[in-house]
Amino acid sequence: MAEEFPMTGGDGPNSYAKNSNAAAKAADGAKAMLAAAIFENLDIETLQSRPTTFRIADLGCSVGPNTFFQVDNIIDAVSQKYHKKSKVQSAGELPEFQVYFSDLVSNDFNYLFATLPRDRQYFTAGVPGSFHGRLFPEASLNFVYSAYALHWLSKVPDELRDINSPAFNKGRILYGNAPYEVGQAYSAQYAKDIKSFFHARGQELAPGGLMVLLILGRPHGTLPAQNSLAPYFQPLESTLADMVNEGLLSEDKFDSFNLPVYCPSVEELRDLIEESGCFDILTLECIGQMPFSLPSAQGCRAGTESILRKHLGDEIIEPLFDRYSKNKNIAGSASLVHDDSMAVGFFVLVKRKLL
Amino acid sequence: MAEEFPMTGGDGPNSYAKNSNAAAKAADGAKAMLAAAIFENLDIETLQSRPTTFRIADLGCSVGPNTFFQVDNIIDAVSQKYHKKSKVQSAGELPEFQVYFSDLVSNDFNYLFATLPRDRQYFTAGVPGSFHGRLFPEASLNFVYSAYALHWLSKVPDELRDINSPAFNKGRILYGNAPYEVGQAYSAQYAKDIKSFFHARGQELAPGGLMVLLILGRPHGTLPAQNSLAPYFQPLESTLADMVNEGLLSEDKFDSFNLPVYCPSVEELRDLIEESGCFDILTLECIGQMPFSLPSAQGCRAGTESILRKHLGDEIIEPLFDRYSKNKNIAGSASLVHDDSMAVGFFVLVKRKLL
Repeated sequence: MAEEFPMTGGDGPNSYAKNSNAAAKAADGAKAMLAAAIFENLDIETLQSRPTTFRIADLGCSVGPNTFFQVDNIIDAVSQKYHKKSKVQSAGELPEFQVYFSDLVSNDFNYLFATLPRDRQYFTAGVPGSFHGRLFPEASLNFVYSAYALHWLSKVPDELRDINSPAFNKGRILYGNAPYEVGQAYSAQYAKDIKSFFHARGQELAPGGLMVLLILGRPHGTLPAQNSLAPYFQPLESTLADMVNEGLLSEDKFDSFNLPVYCPSVEELRDLIEESGCFDILTLECIGQMPFSLPSAQGCRAGTESILRKHLGDEIIEPLFDRYSKNKNIAGSASLVHDDSMAVGFFVLVKRKLL
Repeated sequence: MAEEFPMTGGDGPNSYAKNSNAAAKAADGAKAMLAAAIFENLDIETLQSRPTTFRIADLGCSVGPNTFFQVDNIIDAVSQKYHKKSKVQSAGELPEFQVYFSDLVSNDFNYLFATLPRDRQYFTAGVPGSFHGRLFPEASLNFVYSAYALHWLSKVPDELRDINSPAFNKGRILYGNAPYEVGQAYSAQYAKDIKSFFHARGQELAPGGLMVLLILGRPHGTLPAQNSLAPYFQPLESTLADMVNEGLLSEDKFDSFNLPVYCPSVEELRDLIEESGCFDILTLECIGQMPFSLPSAQGCRAGTESILRKHLGDEIIEPLFDRYSKNKNIAGSASLVHDDSMAVGFFVLVKRKLL
């Protein structure tokens, strides 16, 4: 059974909506690449000759506004391509666009719907469910987008909680500076999840359909243990460890708590996509170190509150983030991390093979 | 600007989910007609020869479970038709089903999604917006269903609140026992709304697509003033009037408050559908008096709380329904109303004309 840990919904001070600047910056950096990817690679000819519905899905959309901005970028680029290729003269001859905003069942769709842009030029729908499985009918999508969501695993690998396993992850919440076996357990779960993802998308994307993925990865030639997201979550890990030392959190609970996130290398990701067999890789490149700051208490909370509540209990949230916000290692409004072991961003463009 | 008054969400004691037995009974009564309508009238031939996606929309779905039951009935009937007509031997050759659950933006989609049947045999999406306008791409739907939702108007006619109009609706919250002009104002708004509804559906339904509507109407040959929903809302009206008499609610507020609901006659409805020009009417018949009880305080509250809050203020809700629940005219768990002026149910089956 996959687990669900959505971003915090609504628009309160701890919400994802109010704490997603880093994700916005990261996605914004890929905007031009996104537009070029569509303009250069979308085959209008493989769509029906008469303009019809062009269906777009954003997988792991969370709530707005980031997803709304990127959807506008995608629609602009597709429309430009239509104007160029089909010599259509007016917007009336463009296809109609239908956009599926998809995220976990527990995502705050009520808030997402309430904040949809009023002047949007597309039909819309919310699709609840995990992108590790099927979400859409066969060959029904023309374009899939997913930004910085695929590092979430469907579950924490079981071995990490098994005291008799060499992958038992004592005193850590992730695989940074962990034994080799811990990184391997994470890597194996990622491989399983990403295969499921590409298998599902292979069925859902129409032949010739494009998929753009923005993915958190780790630099070329590094091992999982020399990762990626550990610096980002280090203040959370050390705050939890402090609470164990002070007797406010049991050591057992801390040792059995792990974050279900993983950053692949380019090589690892390429192999997994090719194994899926359904896609031609058009672009798979590192677009540089992520513009991450160490997250503020609110920023960290927006992404981790639901998983922390589930595993460590409701009562830990307030004292944990109260301590976190006083952590001297996170100076004020959070300094930028410049660290060779920091996560990098991958831009992935694949095309569904023709039948 | 259309107004939105959704059913109360969630699963609390005042929720629609816990107070929709009457709607369930009413829809259940039409189950056999629904199945026959599909079996006899769905032209598999007009779909592509290769099984593809069969798209169903429930407009005004509110939250479950009623909508889930009816969707299962629809899919069962469509599948039977496929088995018969296409001589398909296995379920694998059926089309894939995609079901759009649609209701107002302020509907509780989070609750709807959390309670989706786990064993459902269809892909799903939630579509926020008013069914008085476009919700889906052109010719993208194969079957539309809407149960007891079309009596909701997009707004209260302005004249009802205009003290200088002959349609000023003093001392009433609906058009029962009202002057002729009040009924006419409601009727005119309904005509405008239902035309918008059929215009939008005419664009969205694929040629040959079917639409089944369960509609609250009034008996043949009656005037609006001899209505329909007035007995249902009479306890609410009289409770509000009591509060005015006791100085707990201003007379102005009471006079300016009206419910945006209307029940057409069969003749009225037939004319409006024919005017739309896009549909052949296959069935339009009265399926009998609605099995309505006078609503309990909770039943009435689930459907009216949001509109009451908006127009009369949050503070009125608890004292209002506290009084309502003590109203001697609603004996105990609510007696059935047998009244010639009570609402009747219409079963409407229309088919999108071929191009």
